[in-house]
This record gives sequence, C-alpha cells and structure tokens, in this order.
Amino acid sequence: MQETKKIAIVGSGLVGSLLGIYLRKAGHTVHIFDRSPDIRSINFSGRSINLAMSNRGWKALDEAGIGADIRKIAIPLAKRAIHIGTQTSNQFYGKDGECIYSISRGVLNKKMIDLAENAGVTFFFEHKVWDITLSEATLHVGESEHEAWTDLKYDMVFGADGAFSRIRHRMQRQNRFNYSQEFLDIGYKELNIPANSDGSYKLDQHALHIWPRGQYMLIALPNLDGSFTCTLFMPFEGQNSLESLQSKQEVEDFFKENLPDTVDIIPNLVEDFFKNPTSTLVTMKCYPWTFENKVALIGDAAHAIVPFYGQGMNAGFEDITVLYDMIQQHPNDWSAIFMEYQKSRKPNADAIAELSFRNFVEMSTKTADTTFILQKKIEKHFSEKHPDKWVPLYSRVTFSHRPYSEALAQGEAQDRIMQKILAIDGINELWNSTFVENEILKLLECNG
Amino acid sequence: MQETKKIAIVGSGLVGSLLGIYLRKAGHTVHIFDRSPDIRSINFSGRSINLAMSNRGWKALDEAGIGADIRKIAIPLAKRAIHIGTQTSNQFYGKDGECIYSISRGVLNKKMIDLAENAGVTFFFEHKVWDITLSEATLHVGESEHEAWTDLKYDMVFGADGAFSRIRHRMQRQNRFNYSQEFLDIGYKELNIPANSDGSYKLDQHALHIWPRGQYMLIALPNLDGSFTCTLFMPFEGQNSLESLQSKQEVEDFFKENLPDTVDIIPNLVEDFFKNPTSTLVTMKCYPWTFENKVALIGDAAHAIVPFYGQGMNAGFEDITVLYDMIQQHPNDWSAIFMEYQKSRKPNADAIAELSFRNFVEMSTKTADTTFILQKKIEKHFSEKHPDKWVPLYSRVTFSHRPYSEALAQGEAQDRIMQKILAIDGINELWNSTFVENEILKLLECNG
Repeated sequence: MQETKKIAIVGSGLVGSLLGIYLRKAGHTVHIFDRSPDIRSINFSGRSINLAMSNRGWKALDEAGIGADIRKIAIPLAKRAIHIGTQTSNQFYGKDGECIYSISRGVLNKKMIDLAENAGVTFFFEHKVWDITLSEATLHVGESEHEAWTDLKYDMVFGADGAFSRIRHRMQRQNRFNYSQEFLDIGYKELNIPANSDGSYKLDQHALHIWPRGQYMLIALPNLDGSFTCTLFMPFEGQNSLESLQSKQEVEDFFKENLPDTVDIIPNLVEDFFKNPTSTLVTMKCYPWTFENKVALIGDAAHAIVPFYGQGMNAGFEDITVLYDMIQQHPNDWSAIFMEYQKSRKPNADAIAELSFRNFVEMSTKTADTTFILQKKIEKHFSEKHPDKWVPLYSRVTFSHRPYSEALAQGEAQDRIMQKILAIDGINELWNSTFVENEILKLLECNG
Repeated sequence: MQETKKIAIVGSGLVGSLLGIYLRKAGHTVHIFDRSPDIRSINFSGRSINLAMSNRGWKALDEAGIGADIRKIAIPLAKRAIHIGTQTSNQFYGKDGECIYSISRGVLNKKMIDLAENAGVTFFFEHKVWDITLSEATLHVGESEHEAWTDLKYDMVFGADGAFSRIRHRMQRQNRFNYSQEFLDIGYKELNIPANSDGSYKLDQHALHIWPRGQYMLIALPNLDGSFTCTLFMPFEGQNSLESLQSKQEVEDFFKENLPDTVDIIPNLVEDFFKNPTSTLVTMKCYPWTFENKVALIGDAAHAIVPFYGQGMNAGFEDITVLYDMIQQHPNDWSAIFMEYQKSRKPNADAIAELSFRNFVEMSTKTADTTFILQKKIEKHFSEKHPDKWVPLYSRVTFSHRPYSEALAQGEAQDRIMQKILAIDGINELWNSTFVENEILKLLECNG
C-alpha cells in the first residue's frame, strides 16, 4: 500500500506532465508548477525540432494508458530520405514495420497537459519557482527574484524543468555535485515546408528527410496538417556558417547553390530565416540526481542531450518508467527509490548523450558516404540472416528497451568488426557472400 | 598612454589582491569587494593546504616589486622527504638551488592586502556581491540575496572570487558558456605538527614531507614558527576512508598502524581530526572567461584545480602577468586585451588542471615505487648530461615560465620514451650507461 505523498513537479513540459500522470497512478497528490503561461492558451511557435517518438517513449505512454491518444497525433516514419543534389534515396530505419513517429512538440505538450489534468494533476501556471530548500522540499515562488517569496512545502519535489533547471541550479551549489554543460559550435534554425493547397504533402510524409552536407545539414519532419518542420543545423562561425548568412541575398544564393531542391518548397525561406531565432545545442550532465528522499531531477534537468538521435524525450520518458519500477520495488522507501533510480539511469543517460553527440556526424556526413551505406547494407544483410547475433546500433537505441549503455558498448564492438570487414579486398562485390558472413561470425566469436 | 578606468575586483584573496596591485600600476582606480571580513582582523584558521610558491608566482610578485617582501615569509624546500615505514628518503625537485617555497595562505593573504592598500587599492570588506549585470559591468550588492540591492557601476569587473565565483555563476547562465565542475572522491583534513618547545622543527624544514600510501597520503609543509601544516588526503568512502574513521580509537589505531612515525609528532591528532572540517577537491573548467570588454574571470574563478602540483596560486598569478602583457600590447583596447588573455590562458589552464589531477597518483603512489624512482634517476642523469635535450616535467611546470600546455605535451612524449627505456633488459644496472644514453638520444630523434 502506497502512502499518499504531496508532491510538486517543477516544469509542465512533456516529462513533467507524464510524471504527473504516473505519480497520480501511484496514488499521490501532484502539483505541477510552471513559470510560463498554459501552453494550451497561447499560440505555440516553435524553436523546436519535431519530436521522434520511438519504442522507449511509447512504452511509457502505453503503460500510462495514453498511448492510443498520442498515436492519433503521430506520423510513422519508416526511413530516412537522403537528398543529394536533386536526387533522393531511402535508408530504412529497421525491419519491416519498425518506425519512428513524428510529433509536434506543441501539439503533444497540450495533449499531455489535458491528460494529466484528467488524471487529477493540478497545474499552477505563471508560478515562478526561483529556488528550493532541498532538505525541506520547499519551493520558493514569487513574481521576481528579488522580492519576497512564498514558501511552498512538499513531501517531495521533482525538477522536470529542463536543461536550465532551477532545481538543479540549487543542487549544483552543493559540495561533491558534479556538473557540466558543453555547447556545440553548431546552432539551428527552424524553417517550414507548407502543405500543398489541397492539404497534401510536398515530400514523402513517411520519411525523415535529410540534406546531408558535411559541416551542416537540413532535416524535415512531417506535421499532421501537410506541412513539414525543417531544421537547419549549421556552425555558428566559419565557412558555410550562420554568421556567413547575413543578407537576404546570401541566404537565397546559399540555398540555391547547396540545397537546390528545397528552393521551391520553402517559400518563406528568407522571412523565416531572419524572423526565427538561432538556437543553441547543449549537452548537460550532472550527478547526483537526487537529494536524500526529498528531491529528484528527471528528463532534461538531469541529462540534456543534443537532438541527433531523436532520443531526448524518449530518454526522459524512460526515466519515468524506471522510477515507477523503483516505486513498485521499494514501497514507500523513497530513499531507496531515489538511490536506485539515479544509479540505474546515470550510465544510460551518459551513453545516450555520447550516442547523440556522435550521431550528428552520421546524419550530416555518413548518410552521404558510400562506405557507410555499404556498411549498413552488410549489417542489414547479416542481421536478417542472424537476428540473434546482430542487432544494429540504431535498432538497439530506437526499437528496443535494453539499456542505452549496452547499445553504446555493443555498437562500438560491432563497429570494430565492421571496420575489419570493410577492409576486405573486393568487399564491394563480396558484401553478401558466405565468405563475409563467416568472417563476421568468426569476429563475433573472438569478441564473445 | 593608458586611459584610467574604474575597475572592480570581486574577491580579496591572493589573486584579487595582486591583480589590484597590477591594475594600480597600470594607472587605474581599483575597488576590491569581499563578502568576508578583513582577513587581517580575524584569526585565520585554515582549512587550507600550505602554498608552494614557485617560479611563475615569484615572477608575478617580482614584476610588481613585492617579491622581496614575500620572500621574508617563505621557506625554501629543495626536496620531497618520503616517509615509508619509519624510514625517510629524499627526492630532490630540481637542479642545485631550485626550490619551491612553503608559505601560509593566511600570512600571505594578509601581507598582500597590506601591499595592495599601499599601492592605492581601496578594499570593501563585508560587501556581498550577489549578482552582476554583465553588459553594464554593474555589481549588485546587498545584505541578503532577497533584499533590495545597491547597484555599483564600473568600467570593468574582474571575478577573482574563487572556485565558487558569483561572477562566473552569472556568465554560466548565458548561451554557449561551457562549464564543468568535477569533484574527486578524495577529501582532505588539516592536521598540525607543532614546533619543539625551543621553537625548532620536528622534521627537516627544507623538505615537503610525504607519507605515500597509495589510495591515501599525508603531507606536511613547514611554517615560519617551527610548526608544520599537515594535510591528510583520503577517499571519502571505502576501505581506509574518512568514513571509516569515526571514533577516536579508530583514528588512533589507523595512524599507529599506517603512519607510525607521525604518532609522536602530531600530539593533537584526535582533537584536530574531529574538530577540523573535511574539505573537498574540485576541478572547475569554463569558457569563455570574458564578457565583451566588461568582465573577466581570473584565477580559481576561471580554472580551479586540485592542489597536487602546488600550482593553483602560481597559475592564478601567471594569469595576471599574461593579462598585464596584453594590457601593454593593446593599449586601451580592452576587447583585444580580454580576447587575447583568454585565448592565451585557456589551453594552459586545461593543461595544469590535467597535470594536477595526475599528480595525486605520483605523490601518493609513485614516490614509493622503485620503478618510478629509477625513472627519475635516469631522467636526472640524462638531463644533467644533456640539459638542452631533456627538461624533466616537474621542472618544466615548476621552475620555468614556458606554457603549461607545452609541459604537458613534452611530459607525455618523455614518458613514452621512458617506458621504452625502462623495458630494457637489465635497466637496473645499465641506467647510467652510454648504451641507455644513446637509446634515449635515438628515441628523442624519432620524436623530433
């Protein structure tokens, strides 16, 4: 029997809302605070890459009983569509039927808040949490940072307040709290491919579109209304950089020369380019994630990652399912729940941070590289013949519930094997031969 | 001709005080703020390892014209005295006459504040700087964090406020500010070896004493009054840890068993052990160090390091000499001064952080290792014959003004060579042979 606790969650984003639903399911009183207005009441304009929901995310939604609701606003993507010059080629993500799902962050967040309210969560929007007394699980709320604050005492507080978390900010000033924030030299800008006048899509809507250009890339994910949300990832400084695109003419010329097949489908290129903000990309790591049995960080507040594996939200949602497992395993023992939660999740958060960082190079460069394409072809061929012996890294991360840390380690071992295979004389012709198959089996045995 | 600027320094520690002297020398108005009372008015009780002043520090003091004043309160140490069992052996730091200098942090800081006042710096003690508006170089000062603050506007602000800098704290919340803080799992505790009743030293006062015990170690540095300040470095948890020493009996038994020759010379062991706080050790890195031509971080606020190379203060003082060089090179162009300062110092700060981290293992383990002692003997022998070809790493760091980053790189190259030399059959006998000398010369040529 769970003792009912009075719990505050700071942050009404995706992880905060879903955590609220889970804690209600466990029988607790849940208040969610957010400094922003209710997202349902405002026109959500994104500086946001569309989300790619995959198996870890779906599991968390399904176990909360809301997967069916969210599937209605999700578009399945079975493949990458790679645009080089004016040619497009497809690279499938997994086996037949395995998809990731494009969802608009704004649409999803509104829906999640509705569902959390239905589950009995109380939301306090436009409530600014400035600080927390960790040992008392007491939030300090007020209009401004320098005026008198109201103290709100809880049994427990969750910091689901994102990469720039105020809750973590307080924890960070404690002794023996490890912390790092590392920005990429790459920024991003949102652009838009509108629907055709009849509401149809201008590109294949069941693909994640990539224009891989090495140092920079453009991607596009479909929305329900026939449009695509595009994201241009580009270095801040240097050649082909955001800094180098200062005038309308420079932007137009750049797209004409380097992304010619986008010119007709991004009609508001110049307006959007200069109107939309340039956003940054940060990897944030910290430890510990909890304070006694009082306070815990979750989602981006504990482990913000770059978006190149589409796993940020999925990792945050998986935090919740792991936490919920611990709640079942250690009834009412919140010290044990918090300790096991952080010990279990930290190595996996570090692993997905590393995988996400590395995946920029895969998306922006390798998807256009013939050796990489050959490697994927060999892996797929072998994996179909020996599904028990070879699960490709992308599938381990995206279509599995095994730990991220295992995916990282196995992926590195597979990569060492593939480097040897790709070095075989005549591999271009031999790639699907029994010889190569046996070589891979041999190398797997050495590793095993 | 320098334009006179109104400059605030936050932090009246060693770096803040010396920076004040340099900025006065350059003709500026200098106000130094500190949240603490004037250290000259209080009984300084240290949780502080004694300082080891070496060449980089002396250069900064000499160029400010105060080296002679500080030499009066410094004790030269030519060697490490290694205590194993009840035996002591000496390991010299450098060539004849090369020494590091033991200074008490409290004594030095008091002296530096006197000297800064003499140079025309104005100090504002017990003034709490809570925040800064970076773009306005405006400090926000007040009694408490939540009451109304007074705004103090300057032309420029330096954050010399240490590892937990408030100034950096504000910079950290900017986009594209990289930051990390990483604590060691090792803590430390101050202990004391008092003088004999006639004021003489109980141990050789011209040595840095080390009791190397692998996972933990004790060190001792002399003070002017005949006493030694000792520091016990030890893991927080596990076997032979601070956590494992809970009772008086446990502490006494531990010292008797593992540090038998200290029992008679640390009379207040048990009292001090439980009275003195356990301190933590952190490496802090960040970048950028400056904001426009308004704000700059310096010393520990920019690059806090662990103390195992005795370079924390020396590195902070070298920041000042490099900054002063830039002031001379770019008269009145503070954007250029700040940019060149941070670009020049950052790689060196990262290098000394890494060297300091690695030196714990050298002090606690290698100083007791026969292979390491042999390696040092070979290096010393070769270096004496070929002083142009081989400067030992310790000397590059401690007795030179060449960049730390160069020392790190050269040290790693030397180490690769020495690993090959130590693998030579019969090296124990051959160490000073012409054969080994020629082998080293050959390996140096391959590298060169």
